Amino acid sequence: MMGKSKLERYLQMRREFADKRLINLNPIQRGGVLTEAAKEAIVEFGDGYSTCDWCPPKTSRLDQIERPPIAQFMKDLATFLGMDVARVVTRCREAIFIVFRTLGRPGDYVVVDGLAHYSTYVAAELAGLKVKEVPHGGYPEFKLNLDAYADKMDEVKRETGKLPAAVLLTHVDPTYGNLNDAAAVGKTCREHGVPFLLNAAYTAGVMPVNGEKLGADAIVSSGHKSWAASAPTGILAMKREIADRVLGRSKIVGDWSKRSFPQKECALLGCTVMGAPLLTLMASFPSVVERVGHWGEEVKKARYLVEQLERIEGTRQLGTRPKQHTLIHLESNGLYKVSQTHKRRGFFLYEELKKRNVVGIQPGLTKHFELSTYGLTPEQVTHVASAFHEIAEKYGLSVG
Amino acid sequence: MMGKSKLERYLQMRREFADKRLINLNPIQRGGVLTEAAKEAIVEFGDGYSTCDWCPPKTSRLDQIERPPIAQFMKDLATFLGMDVARVVTRCREAIFIVFRTLGRPGDYVVVDGLAHYSTYVAAELAGLKVKEVPHGGYPEFKLNLDAYADKMDEVKRETGKLPAAVLLTHVDPTYGNLNDAAAVGKTCREHGVPFLLNAAYTAGVMPVNGEKLGADAIVSSGHKSWAASAPTGILAMKREIADRVLGRSKIVGDWSKRSFPQKECALLGCTVMGAPLLTLMASFPSVVERVGHWGEEVKKARYLVEQLERIEGTRQLGTRPKQHTLIHLESNGLYKVSQTHKRRGFFLYEELKKRNVVGIQPGLTKHFELSTYGLTPEQVTHVASAFHEIAEKYGLSVG
Repeated sequence: MMGKSKLERYLQMRREFADKRLINLNPIQRGGVLTEAAKEAIVEFGDGYSTCDWCPPKTSRLDQIERPPIAQFMKDLATFLGMDVARVVTRCREAIFIVFRTLGRPGDYVVVDGLAHYSTYVAAELAGLKVKEVPHGGYPEFKLNLDAYADKMDEVKRETGKLPAAVLLTHVDPTYGNLNDAAAVGKTCREHGVPFLLNAAYTAGVMPVNGEKLGADAIVSSGHKSWAASAPTGILAMKREIADRVLGRSKIVGDWSKRSFPQKECALLGCTVMGAPLLTLMASFPSVVERVGHWGEEVKKARYLVEQLERIEGTRQLGTRPKQHTLIHLESNGLYKVSQTHKRRGFFLYEELKKRNVVGIQPGLTKHFELSTYGLTPEQVTHVASAFHEIAEKYGLSVG
Repeated sequence: MMGKSKLERYLQMRREFADKRLINLNPIQRGGVLTEAAKEAIVEFGDGYSTCDWCPPKTSRLDQIERPPIAQFMKDLATFLGMDVARVVTRCREAIFIVFRTLGRPGDYVVVDGLAHYSTYVAAELAGLKVKEVPHGGYPEFKLNLDAYADKMDEVKRETGKLPAAVLLTHVDPTYGNLNDAAAVGKTCREHGVPFLLNAAYTAGVMPVNGEKLGADAIVSSGHKSWAASAPTGILAMKREIADRVLGRSKIVGDWSKRSFPQKECALLGCTVMGAPLLTLMASFPSVVERVGHWGEEVKKARYLVEQLERIEGTRQLGTRPKQHTLIHLESNGLYKVSQTHKRRGFFLYEELKKRNVVGIQPGLTKHFELSTYGLTPEQVTHVASAFHEIAEKYGLSVG
């Protein structure tokens, strides 16, 4: 049935992109590169339930373990985000689901931005909620109309007789990398008395994010996207009042055994990330606290690359200008024009970049593609710019 | 706010139990020790979204990635468990939640065994379901009355007018390590037309489990508990008919943007374990396929240890006899008696074992405690027996 030879495919699996000579521009991967401390931690805590050697017998809860210092980390994580309570869950999307599921009842609405990640919609769907979207202004800036949050909340109230269960804003959207004014939305939510959930998957961990200052009731983020941690790790940080609802304890009682589990946080299903990825998140935390202070330099590199890439004929950055984030969405009618007659079609760009040790742009794309400069050295950014210029010139596009 | 000195606690975190001289008897940890191949994979794929270098653009789904061979692994995993379709989710408990959430509607019942893991109850609660329990016979065997499954299904039908949404059996329970006749429950479920979910957290990955033969509609298991994988990893394997319901695609549509996500499996929230733990599960898979063939030897070691420990005055194994699994629940009135007058109270046992390089029994416990022999060498099992004998004799207990 399963011969040994076939099973060999699972041995010695290698990640081509682990090659240090490669410059990987994939926006979902730049903020998740492990620190040296995290690389040590992942080896040390690789085995199964490696976090559970000192599980506290009275509650048997991951977030209360003191060796390694998980309980302290939950406090430090909350403080770092300007919130009161934090938990690590399995993914940012699970954190969104947990908030939606616990704040809403089936049939309720949530108001979300029209550029939200797909997982926001699917989380709402799994929680049985409906979404109402705040629109954006379309091409070329795709700027969200944040003033519409108030209108949409009122609209939900008119249509259903009650306010939405929550409002979600994607702090930086995954397509254009636009940074939104979270504080403005926080203010609107406070005025309406609706809980405000900030999806900081692309911001917390790479740039300063303080939930208190932004008026957020809950912040979710992604350890593997922006905190130099292994997947799967999600961050859920909350103000105390919301935490009491979101982290409600289990109330179920066995009808025959009468067993109950009043220590367990129901929506977390008890324990969450009981192994290596949590330890990578913790081990990288000191570096993360430090690195958010250098965000200004990161944005400068992104702006520099945009400037260089826009020199290529028919190429422009989409989204708001100037860049306030390292995730860049490019439109290139020039490179697209080349692909139309190239025998490798759209794949030529990927292949030409790869020859120059640049990867992470989706194979096949030329007209619209995304990349991120986060964490690259200035020399690497310069190399990326040169690689694009060389390719453009090779195919007869002008570089102005 | 967070001084550098305080953050240093997250650097160089060491796992005391990683010391190879220690014999760790913790039942949740024995089956999750990484293989050498998995240790290589966790380093290679440590960075954030390391699985996503070759994400297929059309669906952007983890289970369809071919480099590394995740798509093939899903097929092999299903075949190995005698099922049609498999997915890796973040935890066994998440797999249970997914099945309950997709097969049931709020207010529906699930019938579960009275020895089920707490997460079974909490998963039902989060899915909005009620539980009806199948009783066990209590002390000393705690044997489940599997015949009662039929009665309980009928009871639900009488009380609510409809059959339960699903039946769950914990293949080997986490407290006594009793192995249950899953095929018998499978037959009953088929006769009633109720989907049968087998929780194989303690069985699949260490002993042969074939869902087809057992009449299971779905099998859930835990990679970090029994498949030599890092946490968090859960396994969800299903017959085709159930998979169509459980893996239903997203139907939500943005009211303004009209965006929809028809490729995404709603209850999985799209992608699941997009990093290192999945790769450890895959890298260990060839070893797992091989090791389940040696289950007989594992059971022999467990029986041997029970025989040796029962030589200690006032000590007996609880649960069904003879052992059919490596998870052992001991009652020791002898060791408990010692703890009553020892200045370290119940902690004496942990400390005496630790001196002899044996760990994993919960500190403080003497009267009832659990341990597992899974994966220990015969020499290690002998050492554990000797350690207990020495401690018993040191404190004046007879060893017959």
